[in-house]
Amino acid sequence: MASSTLHVCVTCRSEITAPEAERPGARLLAAIERRHESERAGVTVVGVACLSNCQRGCSAAVTGPGKWTYVIGGLDPDLHAGDILEFARLHRAHEQGLPVWRERPDHIRKNTIARVPPLHSIKEQT
Amino acid sequence: MASSTLHVCVTCRSEITAPEAERPGARLLAAIERRHESERAGVTVVGVACLSNCQRGCSAAVTGPGKWTYVIGGLDPDLHAGDILEFARLHRAHEQGLPVWRERPDHIRKNTIARVPPLHSIKEQT
Repeated sequence: MASSTLHVCVTCRSEITAPEAERPGARLLAAIERRHESERAGVTVVGVACLSNCQRGCSAAVTGPGKWTYVIGGLDPDLHAGDILEFARLHRAHEQGLPVWRERPDHIRKNTIARVPPLHSIKEQT
Repeated sequence: MASSTLHVCVTCRSEITAPEAERPGARLLAAIERRHESERAGVTVVGVACLSNCQRGCSAAVTGPGKWTYVIGGLDPDLHAGDILEFARLHRAHEQGLPVWRERPDHIRKNTIARVPPLHSIKEQT
């Protein structure tokens, strides 16, 4: 089973965040890293500075060699660490990184920002 | 110079598009393919069914081996074929796929939906 990497935007902030407060994106990464190892099994978790989804943060992206990439938004560090990890596990378990729609957590279904095909995955037209 | 691929969502539609009309996404792909070869130099252009950016279409994504991936939205097939091709050329010309901000077309700067790091590009924390 090919690996998957969960990139968590650590610079995401909300309008109500005071400038000196810890950024919600950093809190989301910390919340994910606090989850039990069994929930993170096989998923590599990394922090990244800005996924350019600032309008709909907090944000995370799931990628893997030969797999589709997904960008997920609207992640609340207090609510959705488990959901994004579950989606990353489903992504890891699917050969092409295309989790079955009905198996995806509800929040993930409603807050998918974009997806991008793997490199060299489709017939090149030009 | 590493190659870059421009994925154009051909299923993007707008609310004002009649069901039987050609989809704006397909028209965007056609508009890009009509551009002079010199504008497409080194950029592989492919159509793809749904980039899951349906709220802010038309959409396209630029990817390349070892490079950042960018998703761009709000693309009008009658206005922005040149802009997205210019961004793809800048992406191709930059080793990491990170075009200089001030050189990006204005529409691209204002309609960047998300970006995702290349695989294995950053220190893995877990």
